[in-house]
Amino acid sequence: MLTESGRLEAFSDGVLAIAITLLVLDLRPPQLRPGESLARGLADQWESYAAYVVSFLVIGVIWLNHNTLFSLIRYVDRWVLVSNLVLLMVVAAIPFPTQVLAKYLTAGDADSRTAALLYTATMLAMAVAFTLLFAAVSRRQDLMRPGVDAARVHAGLPRFGAGVVIYAATMLVALVSAPICLLVHFGIAAYYVFDQVGARLAKAAGGGV
Amino acid sequence: MLTESGRLEAFSDGVLAIAITLLVLDLRPPQLRPGESLARGLADQWESYAAYVVSFLVIGVIWLNHNTLFSLIRYVDRWVLVSNLVLLMVVAAIPFPTQVLAKYLTAGDADSRTAALLYTATMLAMAVAFTLLFAAVSRRQDLMRPGVDAARVHAGLPRFGAGVVIYAATMLVALVSAPICLLVHFGIAAYYVFDQVGARLAKAAGGGV
Amino acid sequence: MLTESGRLEAFSDGVLAIAITLLVLDLRPPQLRPGESLARGLADQWESYAAYVVSFLVIGVIWLNHNTLFSLIRYVDRWVLVSNLVLLMVVAAIPFPTQVLAKYLTAGDADSRTAALLYTATMLAMAVAFTLLFAAVSRRQDLMRPGVDAARVHAGLPRFGAGVVIYAATMLVALVSAPICLLVHFGIAAYYVFDQVGARLAKAAGGGV
Amino acid sequence: MLTESGRLEAFSDGVLAIAITLLVLDLRPPQLRPGESLARGLADQWESYAAYVVSFLVIGVIWLNHNTLFSLIRYVDRWVLVSNLVLLMVVAAIPFPTQVLAKYLTAGDADSRTAALLYTATMLAMAVAFTLLFAAVSRRQDLMRPGVDAARVHAGLPRFGAGVVIYAATMLVALVSAPICLLVHFGIAAYYVFDQVGARLAKAAGGGV
Repeated sequence: MLTESGRLEAFSDGVLAIAITLLVLDLRPPQLRPGESLARGLADQWESYAAYVVSFLVIGVIWLNHNTLFSLIRYVDRWVLVSNLVLLMVVAAIPFPTQVLAKYLTAGDADSRTAALLYTATMLAMAVAFTLLFAAVSRRQDLMRPGVDAARVHAGLPRFGAGVVIYAATMLVALVSAPICLLVHFGIAAYYVFDQVGARLAKAAGGGV
Repeated sequence: MLTESGRLEAFSDGVLAIAITLLVLDLRPPQLRPGESLARGLADQWESYAAYVVSFLVIGVIWLNHNTLFSLIRYVDRWVLVSNLVLLMVVAAIPFPTQVLAKYLTAGDADSRTAALLYTATMLAMAVAFTLLFAAVSRRQDLMRPGVDAARVHAGLPRFGAGVVIYAATMLVALVSAPICLLVHFGIAAYYVFDQVGARLAKAAGGGV
Repeated sequence: MLTESGRLEAFSDGVLAIAITLLVLDLRPPQLRPGESLARGLADQWESYAAYVVSFLVIGVIWLNHNTLFSLIRYVDRWVLVSNLVLLMVVAAIPFPTQVLAKYLTAGDADSRTAALLYTATMLAMAVAFTLLFAAVSRRQDLMRPGVDAARVHAGLPRFGAGVVIYAATMLVALVSAPICLLVHFGIAAYYVFDQVGARLAKAAGGGV
Repeated sequence: MLTESGRLEAFSDGVLAIAITLLVLDLRPPQLRPGESLARGLADQWESYAAYVVSFLVIGVIWLNHNTLFSLIRYVDRWVLVSNLVLLMVVAAIPFPTQVLAKYLTAGDADSRTAALLYTATMLAMAVAFTLLFAAVSRRQDLMRPGVDAARVHAGLPRFGAGVVIYAATMLVALVSAPICLLVHFGIAAYYVFDQVGARLAKAAGGGV
């Protein structure tokens, strides 16, 4: 059974907007040591600011791609509903690994790498969930908006699935250095902001203007 | 007096999207004991992750059914407004029993069962509220969208009310074991995700495509 | 200059939905004393549950009335924008006095009355802000939807402003007893849920179905 | 490639509504000293209330201007998407400097000025991001709604960019006194609420009614 995609988009927009905004709850006034200035205390928690920026970009990119993907379709079936719910479950959890990574980023030992692995594993789970959602969406012609060719959309799956490979490779970086790992996540997100898979996808499918 | 259902849906979507996303606030960096590794600390709070997944699915299913139900109607009356507000009051509270259950899940004593009872009682209250909402919605033909037969929708009430019986029975499981109780809640939610009452309902009422 | 009211409604819906859902953050697992059971600990924080229910109803009623009011108009001017922003500022703050009242409800001394006064003063400020918004909305015929008579809407102002008098009178109750004061707030909200000023208003203005 | 602006507006509305509502989380029941009354404790945290009001107004004004700006356009390109995301990143962070400023407002020493500088720097970053967004939006005629002249919109850039100069000048005030600095921020926001750049802009572009 198919239902219209409108309210799924609105609900997803809501969850993504809330998850991206809740990231700020990880930014807190520093607990100053005796004699420490506020300026120093604020500077000392730069890991939190870095993690905030990277996770904000990541969720922003997810939102961009989610919107582009759903701009192609008009109806959703059960598999789209389920895979979308799994994706949202992972994305809504992102503030948690963000907070852990910020706290242990410069611990410089095994804990630091554990935090980087947790963060990267979350992104990997997100990429897997998004690829499944992409597959579910592009599987059926009868979900598409008029003029959109499901086969051409589906042909974009390997490029979309590339995110899975990229994040899997970043797991190795997490084993080496947490700060470098965060930098790599920043690079990936920044790349996608400027060169969205989704944009190419929409073009390929004849969408856009 | 009847009013259009559009803004009630938007408000409900908002509350559900926020409640589901606030669940992440129960996931926090672990307080490590001296000498404990972060990896161990993260693993030791698996109860929080389990509770997050189950409650996320539960609210996701509520959203799915809520949307399907409201896709049948065009207008709402006072009883729909009130029963919907009661439902939202229960659902918005779900992060609270979730947090309690995560904290006491493996306490293994009376407190563990108390937490499971609180969690299950919340779900029972939710099922009761949803059944009342269903009854309020399907009571009047003049609320329906064109082509939807209120009598046929109303005929789905017993099947919908089955949730009340299921959650009441789960209260007994809560008395036995909190972890098994959480597993049962996962099973119920997973079942509904794949075999939605709402979906059948829409079909019965001639909705969908 | 006039602008369309659509996005003001969406933004207001968002703020109201978030404020009502953030109330759950005041519900937390109890800090158990040595030897205290979870069941007892949960029961001992009944003030938090009571405050949650009352504030949830209050914000729910605000949302109902806000929607009804805006269903009458199509355009907003600067005064509507400003008075709406002031109303949202008060409503978004409601979780704060709710938390204070829950904490001191049964302290049984001056602090208990202080908390009740803070809570009631917030509601009084809300009623004043809503009355100002009502006045701003009903001031100009050119804001109205086709078929709505601004003069007839404006005639409802005294009845709407009654909320100001009611909450001012409740300030006296707050001086006597915090629990009774909370009960009065529950009564006021429950009354408005079932007998909405807004509903009568819409009827008077020829709205509804 | 251009996409329609509708969902960008909805997502931005969501983030702004959540950021403005999360400000309430900085309002907490006071930690009373032995013998201190609740009334005194509540009065003693007036800095939090002041910071709440000012930041609420600031985000409210951002929302007003954001809406007016997007009411001019129908499509967005990559640069609009990116600059909008940067703006949201800054605005979503506002609860953090708000909390820091409230905590150190009357510390009366270097920390007090540090907090004021952090707060003002955030507003400066917001003004820069908004000016970049304005430039991105008004750069292309093909983004505009029918009847809107991009050149006339673009001509409003200097007036819009005035915010950057104003906030840069406020940095100097932050160096002198944190409370005066907060008062200046209140004045700026209140001025913009009543005399919106956006409103003039819409008028200049032939928008409105």
